[in-house]
Amino acid sequence: MNVPDRRPLRVAILSIGDELVLGTALDTNSRTVSIAVRDLGHDPVEHRTVADRIGPIVAAYRELAAHADVVISTGGLGPTDDDLVRDALNAIIDDGAPMVEDPVAVGDVEAWFAGRGRPMAAINRRQMMRPCSARIMRNPNGTAPGVACTIGAARVYAMPGPPREMVPMLEAHVLPELRAPGAPALVRIGCATFGIGESQLAERLGHRMARDREPSVGTTASGSVVSIHVVTRGPDAAARAERELAECAALAAPWAFGPLESTVAEATVRTLRESGATLAVAESCTGGLVGAMLTAVPGASDVFPGGWIAYANAMKERELGVPGATIAAEGAVSADVALAMARGAAVGAGARIGVALTGIAGPGGGTDAKPVGTVWIAVHDAATGAGRARRFEYPGPRETVRDRAAKTALQLVRWHLRGEDAPVIWERT
Amino acid sequence: MNVPDRRPLRVAILSIGDELVLGTALDTNSRTVSIAVRDLGHDPVEHRTVADRIGPIVAAYRELAAHADVVISTGGLGPTDDDLVRDALNAIIDDGAPMVEDPVAVGDVEAWFAGRGRPMAAINRRQMMRPCSARIMRNPNGTAPGVACTIGAARVYAMPGPPREMVPMLEAHVLPELRAPGAPALVRIGCATFGIGESQLAERLGHRMARDREPSVGTTASGSVVSIHVVTRGPDAAARAERELAECAALAAPWAFGPLESTVAEATVRTLRESGATLAVAESCTGGLVGAMLTAVPGASDVFPGGWIAYANAMKERELGVPGATIAAEGAVSADVALAMARGAAVGAGARIGVALTGIAGPGGGTDAKPVGTVWIAVHDAATGAGRARRFEYPGPRETVRDRAAKTALQLVRWHLRGEDAPVIWERT
Repeated sequence: MNVPDRRPLRVAILSIGDELVLGTALDTNSRTVSIAVRDLGHDPVEHRTVADRIGPIVAAYRELAAHADVVISTGGLGPTDDDLVRDALNAIIDDGAPMVEDPVAVGDVEAWFAGRGRPMAAINRRQMMRPCSARIMRNPNGTAPGVACTIGAARVYAMPGPPREMVPMLEAHVLPELRAPGAPALVRIGCATFGIGESQLAERLGHRMARDREPSVGTTASGSVVSIHVVTRGPDAAARAERELAECAALAAPWAFGPLESTVAEATVRTLRESGATLAVAESCTGGLVGAMLTAVPGASDVFPGGWIAYANAMKERELGVPGATIAAEGAVSADVALAMARGAAVGAGARIGVALTGIAGPGGGTDAKPVGTVWIAVHDAATGAGRARRFEYPGPRETVRDRAAKTALQLVRWHLRGEDAPVIWERT
Repeated sequence: MNVPDRRPLRVAILSIGDELVLGTALDTNSRTVSIAVRDLGHDPVEHRTVADRIGPIVAAYRELAAHADVVISTGGLGPTDDDLVRDALNAIIDDGAPMVEDPVAVGDVEAWFAGRGRPMAAINRRQMMRPCSARIMRNPNGTAPGVACTIGAARVYAMPGPPREMVPMLEAHVLPELRAPGAPALVRIGCATFGIGESQLAERLGHRMARDREPSVGTTASGSVVSIHVVTRGPDAAARAERELAECAALAAPWAFGPLESTVAEATVRTLRESGATLAVAESCTGGLVGAMLTAVPGASDVFPGGWIAYANAMKERELGVPGATIAAEGAVSADVALAMARGAAVGAGARIGVALTGIAGPGGGTDAKPVGTVWIAVHDAATGAGRARRFEYPGPRETVRDRAAKTALQLVRWHLRGEDAPVIWERT
């Protein structure tokens, strides 16, 4: 069922769920599918979202199949009565004839429960059914197999909604059938930066960001990480994109830390490993977030023995050796306390580097001198016995302050080990 | 133009923009509009997203107007040639007759530029035009006025895409016209659960989840939190919804921990406060995630002094007093090590409760006896000197294992303090 010619396919994307139409949840699947489809050189032409009701689902499949070559849907293959995708497709393609139990689906769903030592609920048997004229797409990550069929001339792929089930199914079953052999695939690569603003970065990239330039260069911002995207297609696309990206990344040094979708923590773990260094943390306002980011990286144990969550001042004093007099004189949110915490962490854990954060994440606790968002971050290097503390003022709610502070700490450790330095957009000197 | 009767309006939401269809940007406007519409007691029936091309835009307005009472669109009223909403509406309602310059729009757009000391580009004159049969909606936050008109029996509101322009326009111009005096608003409440599967929960809720029941009861799952939603409208809606939810929550006890959108950590902090207890953590495989979740709750410092990230065995031994012999005999991932860590954390931090996690988050490190996803979680109570360790096997990738383990730890602390207990879906005994 491969695509015979190189004409881009018109792809309509349907998401199904009351929670999406009602606004209880945000649809992110349609975007994921659009990007994947576009990377194959096809044209996403419409997104549509309908509720978990049979009439609108049937109408949406019919209408989209009438004007698109491919319809990809997400959502609504679960075991409950709310999940009507199988019924809708069955009504369209088999006039509502009795569905059949699919032996592969039976095996997969039974194995899924057996592998988890959990009893299968009776309603899960619904998930083993498919319309006679459809085939299933296996789901190793959940109990809902996908369904593939045709409506008129359109190919239809129905996948479950949870992204951790949908994305692997998209990659394993849908995209391979849409990939035209020899099609000039679009090459999309990029790098991620942290600590520089999107407009500052755009100024550094300058003319490279001009519209209709080839390769095209753009930026996006998400969770304070600003990414650079290089997109091109045609002959030598990969080589040209790589060259362009290398030049962009040089302009974005040292804020650029790694490829798209990579994390600052991954870059910091890599740098620690390259430097043969270990890192301990002492976290007050971030409360474990830096450790959580580091240990999200598989194999972080090579370079990260652990650390302290010193949320209370008593923990800072007793466990990290911060002098009570310093806290009394300077306040817990101060350069000296951050430095003492960083030193205490490095020494206590026997690590080369200690990084410490102390600040006011909000919403309460701010003062004129130390407003909400104020965070001191210190890096101590046991190899030299020297430390450096820097002061930041992060705008935004508690969650944003903590996230940005944690990522800043990781970036500062990375820069220290690489002998790099640069201003950070939220720094207050 | 107020709504004459109390019938809920069927509202279709259209978003317009290449960047949305292509997946370059995520559509958040549709969700915002849905929630606002729903809060007025109306029914969002569909979201649709089309590209900045005249054909699809015209077709979308026509189709949506044919089956909805109200069509609300966002995006595409800017000054450039890409912005085709005015042209599309003009083609539909005035057969493409010449548009008129709107004097209020002229004044607003000129004032907008004058107020910023910036010259107005010639193309901005396009934004002063409207179809003869339409009226404008003023935009104090940008240069694109909205357009309101009717297509057949449907009312159509076209707003600009940037949320900081769209939201004020929605509130000032669209919602007031949809508000029926005395209309029975829809009531939507719910509660969140953790540690029970969606199908198990559905079986407990039983007939309450039947379709077309009033109030309606449904479930959604996100990040291992399974939520119960109760929706109703009409006389006494709030009281009936509250009563229904109380009964559902009782069936979901003790897994139910709080209202929709709340976190397990918030519930645990609340229970700690109610119990006058403090909590210290000792985290191995979660590496700080439990602390990060706890300290995401403002005011957690009342009940959370901090803890240890004991990723390396040396940290477990030196800082938490776990006997090296126990680690050697049982392995770091064992009941005895978890119990010793929990005790060490409570004692070391001077807290009543210590909670500890040690496990194999993956992807490497699993064995037949302790596969990836195996986590021991122990709760130690210094008030009694007693501790209890439980073993879990979490499916999924590293991130999921860690997230579920951290939330389980918080739930177990909460249950312990409340004298509650129940099986957890991932438990292995």
